[in-house]
Amino acid sequence: MADAGKSIADQIKEQGEVVRKLKAEKAGIDKITEEVSKLLALKAQQGTEKDEKAGGKFVLKTAKGTRDFNPRQMVIRQQAFDKIIACFKRHGAETLDTPVFELKEVLTGKYGEDSKLIYDLADQGGELLSLRYDLTVPFARFLAMNKVGSIKRYQLGKVYRRDNPAMTKGRFREFFQCDFDIAGPTDPMIPDVECVRVVTEILDSLDLSEHVVKINHRKILDGLFEACGVPESQFRAICSSVDKLDKSPWEDVRREMTDEKGLDPEKADQIGQYVLRAGQDDLVEQLLADTKLCSSKSAVEGLEALKLFFRYAELYGVKKRVKFDMSLARGLDYYTGIIYEAVLTNQNPEEGVGSIAGGGRYDNLVALFDPKAKAVPCVGVSIGIERILAILENREANLKMRTVETQVYVAAAQKNLLEDRMKICAELWDIGIKTEMSYKANPKLLVQLQTCEEQGIPWAIIIGQSELEKGVVKLRHVVSRHEEEIERTKLADVLKEKLSAQVV
Amino acid sequence: MADAGKSIADQIKEQGEVVRKLKAEKAGIDKITEEVSKLLALKAQQGTEKDEKAGGKFVLKTAKGTRDFNPRQMVIRQQAFDKIIACFKRHGAETLDTPVFELKEVLTGKYGEDSKLIYDLADQGGELLSLRYDLTVPFARFLAMNKVGSIKRYQLGKVYRRDNPAMTKGRFREFFQCDFDIAGPTDPMIPDVECVRVVTEILDSLDLSEHVVKINHRKILDGLFEACGVPESQFRAICSSVDKLDKSPWEDVRREMTDEKGLDPEKADQIGQYVLRAGQDDLVEQLLADTKLCSSKSAVEGLEALKLFFRYAELYGVKKRVKFDMSLARGLDYYTGIIYEAVLTNQNPEEGVGSIAGGGRYDNLVALFDPKAKAVPCVGVSIGIERILAILENREANLKMRTVETQVYVAAAQKNLLEDRMKICAELWDIGIKTEMSYKANPKLLVQLQTCEEQGIPWAIIIGQSELEKGVVKLRHVVSRHEEEIERTKLADVLKEKLSAQVV
Repeated sequence: MADAGKSIADQIKEQGEVVRKLKAEKAGIDKITEEVSKLLALKAQQGTEKDEKAGGKFVLKTAKGTRDFNPRQMVIRQQAFDKIIACFKRHGAETLDTPVFELKEVLTGKYGEDSKLIYDLADQGGELLSLRYDLTVPFARFLAMNKVGSIKRYQLGKVYRRDNPAMTKGRFREFFQCDFDIAGPTDPMIPDVECVRVVTEILDSLDLSEHVVKINHRKILDGLFEACGVPESQFRAICSSVDKLDKSPWEDVRREMTDEKGLDPEKADQIGQYVLRAGQDDLVEQLLADTKLCSSKSAVEGLEALKLFFRYAELYGVKKRVKFDMSLARGLDYYTGIIYEAVLTNQNPEEGVGSIAGGGRYDNLVALFDPKAKAVPCVGVSIGIERILAILENREANLKMRTVETQVYVAAAQKNLLEDRMKICAELWDIGIKTEMSYKANPKLLVQLQTCEEQGIPWAIIIGQSELEKGVVKLRHVVSRHEEEIERTKLADVLKEKLSAQVV
Repeated sequence: MADAGKSIADQIKEQGEVVRKLKAEKAGIDKITEEVSKLLALKAQQGTEKDEKAGGKFVLKTAKGTRDFNPRQMVIRQQAFDKIIACFKRHGAETLDTPVFELKEVLTGKYGEDSKLIYDLADQGGELLSLRYDLTVPFARFLAMNKVGSIKRYQLGKVYRRDNPAMTKGRFREFFQCDFDIAGPTDPMIPDVECVRVVTEILDSLDLSEHVVKINHRKILDGLFEACGVPESQFRAICSSVDKLDKSPWEDVRREMTDEKGLDPEKADQIGQYVLRAGQDDLVEQLLADTKLCSSKSAVEGLEALKLFFRYAELYGVKKRVKFDMSLARGLDYYTGIIYEAVLTNQNPEEGVGSIAGGGRYDNLVALFDPKAKAVPCVGVSIGIERILAILENREANLKMRTVETQVYVAAAQKNLLEDRMKICAELWDIGIKTEMSYKANPKLLVQLQTCEEQGIPWAIIIGQSELEKGVVKLRHVVSRHEEEIERTKLADVLKEKLSAQVV
């Protein structure tokens, strides 16, 4: 916004300087990649503006912040989804689906400062609609609307945010979320810890094992604001300042609290004494002995809850993965209890760092939708799959990978055999064998065999006029190039046997 | 629109009369269900307006024309998707994904009269965007943008149309399409027939076997308009009138042609001589002998193409499923060759009849996106899964169906065993067994066992204090209620064995 008056070219020049300077200073790789990605975004913007100016010609692109997935990316995505869904099912979840847009009112007032990022649909007559911002609010709407009092559900779906995302770092305006939520009355902290267990199982199954799940509790945050003398009306505003500590240093956050939000500097300093602390159950114990903090009933309740959390985390084998981080605040309005955020901690700069999952407890959200304000306590976690995919794609960039599953290719050694090829294809489709052939009437044999090798198709059937007259066809094992003659009438049976024996 | 001046109550009254009259006349079940669904829609509208008037209170609903899928519907949907995807893979297709919205320009001018049904996003600064209307146009945009000259791809995704759908008949504003397309140069009609084969394989695999695939060819339609003396500028307009013959009688369509579109009545009558005819390759032969029609080069080309089509359809074993229907026109602008539409023909009124898949050849669409107007010939088909789901849901309405896959439930026979249950769950999750337990600290044994029976969970582990001290647990087979004692240390191995032996 501050740059609105400057030309793109000037902005690119300035950003180029920033990057050069950081490199000269041998700054951290994260800082450098962040600034490089800003530079690339500016250059892309410049390219787009140029194209648009070129005679008003239509620009061939996807909408800003969105992307296509090619077949290779789809294979990687599907493999990741399969692992994620397997984990959700291992924990007894069922799935449901909601529309991609909701009545605008459904989303209003649920996302705090982030509400400005909601995509609205044009008013074309009828209802006012918005694209879903997450899967959580529609889930709460579903529970209230269908009077569901208890469910363990998972949901995979795209959500939409009018952000200015760094696409190089796996952040988009259209992106997938994989959500797992436990709704309904429970005894304290049992499902809350299971959500962390689910996150670690998934990140482990995707070989993203170097991660930590940061936790905090809204009651501790509220209690700490109370103990530091923040007026209750300012809790949410100060909380969203604290939320910025993962990206900004304390000085900047403090300045926002005092200068922008008018907080007494002394109170801000008191907050600073707490929010920069992190630990495990040892920190919980320390704070339970802190008379100032424990002057707040809310803080004590939150700390007792985390004490129980650590005990259960030990039993579920995830304690070593958890860090109690007092600066974790999470922007969304609807959290009421524990909050989580999983971050990757490995130091491979190409894989980046940053939040890969998040969630928390939201006990009052369903009541907002219920005509009688009936509450359904909920806790859940959302896995941000785009960032994970960026890492997996990068890792597998040089691996050979099949994007089709074809088992048999029906080839002709001579001309005029199209109809025979078609009959064989139909016969193999009938018995469920994945079969292809050339769409040319008279393809060259060499080209057909090359297709098999390039596509990794394991078997080729080669037909010729004289062989057909003798009632036989050739079956070729593509990798070894070994060929054998098969009776035409036994072809289906032989293939069924070969394919069932084969490790695909 | 004509009813805009009437109150909803009046409209309901009138529509009620229409339904009563039809029933008294013993009109066709299709006509009755259609009018009943209009009545229901009016009543729903009335309900909504009442709610909205009730103190401006927020209405708890999904957006008009959209719906949630509950876990049971999701199981049915996933089973159908699995069969559809299996067929697409059997034919060698790979998959890709595109964003749910596109630049508005991408969709402009592709859908003829239906363009008014496109959802636009609000202009919140930045690009003008629209929700995708189908998967075909984004696919063509993808091919041009990535310079893909040849691909066989499938795609499952939601599309959006601001229609006034009869939701009772499985028509929605947000709905899934399952598309299969073959792009790239081929010899004539080979992939075109494979698309029909794909449709019949899918409808057969879903036990929707009573169906017919109607075909026609744009060149035959154009040739017939030419032969009947329609000016070329009116081809598309007259074509969309013909397209209405599946819903309206010839008289109404003729009136639209003459009164609304200004066609010479004599020419309309000539068109009527052709478009009401249907048959198979016999009709193709008859028309090839029709000197008037064959005065059009376009008609001859189209007829020769269908002749080849029927020959290949025979080889692919689908000829008996195909009907050459000269009234089939399909509204979309982009078709250039063969067009298809699959309809269910069974007479179970609850399952309804109507279009369940559609498609055709579109050889010029990709060129519209390519900066050098390079064409990529394409042919494809789109399966309309919502209607299929409505049928399957109706069929399975009374079947017991599991929506979770939990294999083992860890139960306690006494109080104070929460931590032991948690440890066992963690152990079983570690080895990939789908395991649940109660979220209560001290649940009643009976309630826990009831959960197992209600949810169809096959195995329960029951722990007790004295057993744990002896180093054993009880393993209960839920259906038979047979129980055996297992050494605690061998629990994981025993379960792995039981579960691998089990037919799930």
